[in-house]
Amino acid sequence: MKSTLRTFAFSLAAILTLTSTMTPTATANEPGVYRHAVFFKFKDTATPAQIKDLEDGFRALPSKIDVVTGFEWGTNVSPENLNDGFTHCFFVTFKDKAGIDIYIPHPAHKAFVDLLKPQLDKVFVLDYVAQK
Amino acid sequence: MKSTLRTFAFSLAAILTLTSTMTPTATANEPGVYRHAVFFKFKDTATPAQIKDLEDGFRALPSKIDVVTGFEWGTNVSPENLNDGFTHCFFVTFKDKAGIDIYIPHPAHKAFVDLLKPQLDKVFVLDYVAQK
Repeated sequence: MKSTLRTFAFSLAAILTLTSTMTPTATANEPGVYRHAVFFKFKDTATPAQIKDLEDGFRALPSKIDVVTGFEWGTNVSPENLNDGFTHCFFVTFKDKAGIDIYIPHPAHKAFVDLLKPQLDKVFVLDYVAQK
Repeated sequence: MKSTLRTFAFSLAAILTLTSTMTPTATANEPGVYRHAVFFKFKDTATPAQIKDLEDGFRALPSKIDVVTGFEWGTNVSPENLNDGFTHCFFVTFKDKAGIDIYIPHPAHKAFVDLLKPQLDKVFVLDYVAQK
């Protein structure tokens, strides 16, 4: 009986460990998280290499700014042609509004914006608190 | 020993059940999913009641169109003022591109668009395949 209890306690610990290691992904997608949706249209003069540098620059921000709890990006594939010339989406998640207030003035974000501006034609940003 | 093994097997089953019930959320957020990001600016003449009906109408689509694997929405709270008058974001996820091709011409989606159009000033849509 004692060893049964020990095995059960061990298995319970395993369950708790497993669920806690799954938490980071879940946390970034719970209702109530703060979404920061950013869209770019680059200038016609921006070269593919310059655009690639900017994609990589944005992708590096989550590793430099620790309030970012989720990040993904992609380029437009919509069949609807309602994207007004915008080509890129970067979708950043924070736990709450405090995240954006740290992110915007962060030196790593400001350095990225300085790199971005010469190649940028248009930017569109809308943030929302995720509801179901 | 036999009962120890039985307890262990039971606990293992519990772990597998727990992880499989967590899968739906994870699926909607795996890299490679198809994101359909939709933004609205309503006409100044749209009343709060009309806007609420349209929010509820969009929110009902996932229950009517089974290729939708993820859905959330919210209204603009960005401090950056780069939202060009847009107020609403609806963020729809499909497993892959086949989803949008079923969603767009679906009768439930078309009925929603018919309800939406009289109140709509501007729409912006960008779809992307999620990358990290």
